[in-house]
Amino acid sequence: MPLTEFALIDRYFRDLGSRRDVRIGVGDDGAVLAPPAGHDLVAVVDTLVEGVHFPAGSPARSIGHRALAVNLSDVAAMGATPAWALLALTLPRADEPWLEEFAAGFSALARAHDVQLVGGDTTSGPLCVTVQVLGIVPRGEALPRDGGEPGDLVYVTGTPGDAACGLALLQGRLRPATRAEGALDTLRNRFLYPTPRCAIGAGLRGIANACIDISDGLAGDLAKLANASGCGARVDITQLPLSEPLLAAAERPAAEHFALTGGDDYELCFSVPAALAPALAGLPCTAIGRLVEGRGVTVCRGGSVIEFSHSGFDHFGG
Amino acid sequence: MPLTEFALIDRYFRDLGSRRDVRIGVGDDGAVLAPPAGHDLVAVVDTLVEGVHFPAGSPARSIGHRALAVNLSDVAAMGATPAWALLALTLPRADEPWLEEFAAGFSALARAHDVQLVGGDTTSGPLCVTVQVLGIVPRGEALPRDGGEPGDLVYVTGTPGDAACGLALLQGRLRPATRAEGALDTLRNRFLYPTPRCAIGAGLRGIANACIDISDGLAGDLAKLANASGCGARVDITQLPLSEPLLAAAERPAAEHFALTGGDDYELCFSVPAALAPALAGLPCTAIGRLVEGRGVTVCRGGSVIEFSHSGFDHFGG
Repeated sequence: MPLTEFALIDRYFRDLGSRRDVRIGVGDDGAVLAPPAGHDLVAVVDTLVEGVHFPAGSPARSIGHRALAVNLSDVAAMGATPAWALLALTLPRADEPWLEEFAAGFSALARAHDVQLVGGDTTSGPLCVTVQVLGIVPRGEALPRDGGEPGDLVYVTGTPGDAACGLALLQGRLRPATRAEGALDTLRNRFLYPTPRCAIGAGLRGIANACIDISDGLAGDLAKLANASGCGARVDITQLPLSEPLLAAAERPAAEHFALTGGDDYELCFSVPAALAPALAGLPCTAIGRLVEGRGVTVCRGGSVIEFSHSGFDHFGG
Repeated sequence: MPLTEFALIDRYFRDLGSRRDVRIGVGDDGAVLAPPAGHDLVAVVDTLVEGVHFPAGSPARSIGHRALAVNLSDVAAMGATPAWALLALTLPRADEPWLEEFAAGFSALARAHDVQLVGGDTTSGPLCVTVQVLGIVPRGEALPRDGGEPGDLVYVTGTPGDAACGLALLQGRLRPATRAEGALDTLRNRFLYPTPRCAIGAGLRGIANACIDISDGLAGDLAKLANASGCGARVDITQLPLSEPLLAAAERPAAEHFALTGGDDYELCFSVPAALAPALAGLPCTAIGRLVEGRGVTVCRGGSVIEFSHSGFDHFGG
């Protein structure tokens, strides 16, 4: 007898953690949540479609992890702390081993961030995962993307480019310059299991004046931040924090290209008034340039402007 | 030049109303919302997949309406008032006329309920629409589905069965008993443009002790309410409020079957302690039976138990 929709939800997703601020969780028409007083709510939604956001045949555990991670990353970019998630899962069929792996990937990340799954909808159809995450942030302290000013320093967390290189390896599009499997595994896993920067995002409240997460490529997402802030940005390519695995797998020009234009990093890019820069001490981030008067992102090597092919990932082309 | 994802969102969905409690709306990594003090938050999510939840080729305006309506109905079933929506739209291609119609259907219903679209994600892939709605309810007053007790009266809003009959007409599965196009149009529109019962749901706070919306069929959804409440239910089929268009289009046995087992009504079914029944005066609902000791839903005609084929809509069979 096939699993019913309700049994699916019950078996795999009902007990993904338990928060005291959940009055009614999975299993009713809606979840009932008790947001803390003095806080704003941050709501995000992202969809992953097979063949668009991940290669067909990707590990189910990775899909479960990424579906939550990309949303946690959006919450982090707002400076908020994630609290609750809802999952809409469309599957061609009720495949139990697949669901177990998917749930394992989703739930491990949810537990790590104290996020409770409070609602879901399981439907049959082509594989498609939509997750919504709700987070909380002290009232008025969310980080917008439009608060930057010319002269602000621009930072990025982590080591961008790893995930795009990892995807190129997974898809066989890159002949790696190294045979060190450890480095290659690190890169592949940076695509398959990205780390949302929630603690860093919350730590940027009161310091950063604009923040965005890098889902579509550093240059493209920085351009969105700069455009929203009514200014431009200048990035020094020699300041990009390229990881050792990336530099092992790719020649430097390719590594720089991955770091500037590759998507799927889920690092944070943000602007900070120069006077507040000392407050970043201890946070794992790197200054890569400045916001400037004008429009668009200019890339320099030392003092010279260089050309680069600039385009983020855009699902309908353009 | 093809539309980009961002232009799509900008053009069609940015200005679907404006609420003062939205600090940051569409266009940032996440929406920032200010829930009112003294309230709980209700979060719901539902997905519509082409060919599963609506026939392929359905009018885009209907799809936009229904994608929001099914979620508003879940919020109504919790006794909450809807406030904000997020939309994840997966489309095979950027089809402007389709999007205009979709947005028109979505936004007309959103405005009617003072719901603001605060976030979205547009991706390419097989047509699939996931909407999340957030509602608010005075703290502790949400309507669960597990609060019913044996002896409670069971009510339903509106006239169940119309939508299922309308879908049968749309799919050519029913040869209508009438040629009155007005009646048939009414039934088709009850499927294409269901009316979520938000005002009634909010009016049931403090009166109903359990509530569910009828998405999968009255008998099946009442069974869920009764099971969650640890009891059974007894429905008198002669008390079902069958609409005139339904009785015009279908013979009475077929009409009763549509009303008991047809999905897509998005009416509310709820239980009320007999002592509180007078408080329902003025609400458009009908008593159809009682909660009883035991399990499952029993259907009677007057005093006699009758057999009926009982199965709600379940995407993976079972």
